[in-house]
Amino acid sequence: MVKSVDHIGIAVADLEEALKLYTETFGLELQGTEVVEEQKVKVAFLPIGDTEIELLESTDPEGPIAKFIEKRGQGIQHIALRVDDIDAALDKMRAEGIRLIDEKPRYGAGGARIAFLHPKATGGVLIELCERK
Amino acid sequence: MVKSVDHIGIAVADLEEALKLYTETFGLELQGTEVVEEQKVKVAFLPIGDTEIELLESTDPEGPIAKFIEKRGQGIQHIALRVDDIDAALDKMRAEGIRLIDEKPRYGAGGARIAFLHPKATGGVLIELCERK
Repeated sequence: MVKSVDHIGIAVADLEEALKLYTETFGLELQGTEVVEEQKVKVAFLPIGDTEIELLESTDPEGPIAKFIEKRGQGIQHIALRVDDIDAALDKMRAEGIRLIDEKPRYGAGGARIAFLHPKATGGVLIELCERK
Repeated sequence: MVKSVDHIGIAVADLEEALKLYTETFGLELQGTEVVEEQKVKVAFLPIGDTEIELLESTDPEGPIAKFIEKRGQGIQHIALRVDDIDAALDKMRAEGIRLIDEKPRYGAGGARIAFLHPKATGGVLIELCERK
């Protein structure tokens, strides 16, 4: 069902500082940045192989990334798994009793249709399903 | 410098249960398992796109994965970034003042040469550099 790792989402306190590490030290290329208002986050996209590292900096002290860092510190926040048909994928999750955070897909960074599974259903890993046209 | 995400390492309490999720629910294929005695861990390899999910179950209550779960709960423990030349990569890290866990490469699962960077130097992310022949 899942095709690839669409991206790895990393919560960072300071995007500029994190970008230095990923571009200057690791040699990745910054493809662009986007503010996702709904998620109160500024995202930097760094393609790597057939996947992408997404650095996530909160734009609001009450946003989910700020809360994550407050609770757990900076670090990997989620992984996104690419699917061809997110509606079918969510139906499958429901049929298998996998608890969902998002019952219906919503729009994420880059215009993808996304939905999060509940980490209690996935061994503590925050997993996003992600469909791109 | 880094070429791809070699793998994503996920700490799990129960490998059989985790494998059900990743194979039956997500449809990935189990390529094999390996016990890495030095790390006190049993690893299951699940290729996905050009990378791999590695599920890590501790074989010892004193092992690093058991300690990780005790402290943070199950979840993503590290990401491995593939490099062509790990000795040159470690020299570059040292030159840039990136704190290392492993000063010299050692052998990891699948015969790769690996070295961990210190998460304090990488925004809380445990990053493994990984060279494969």
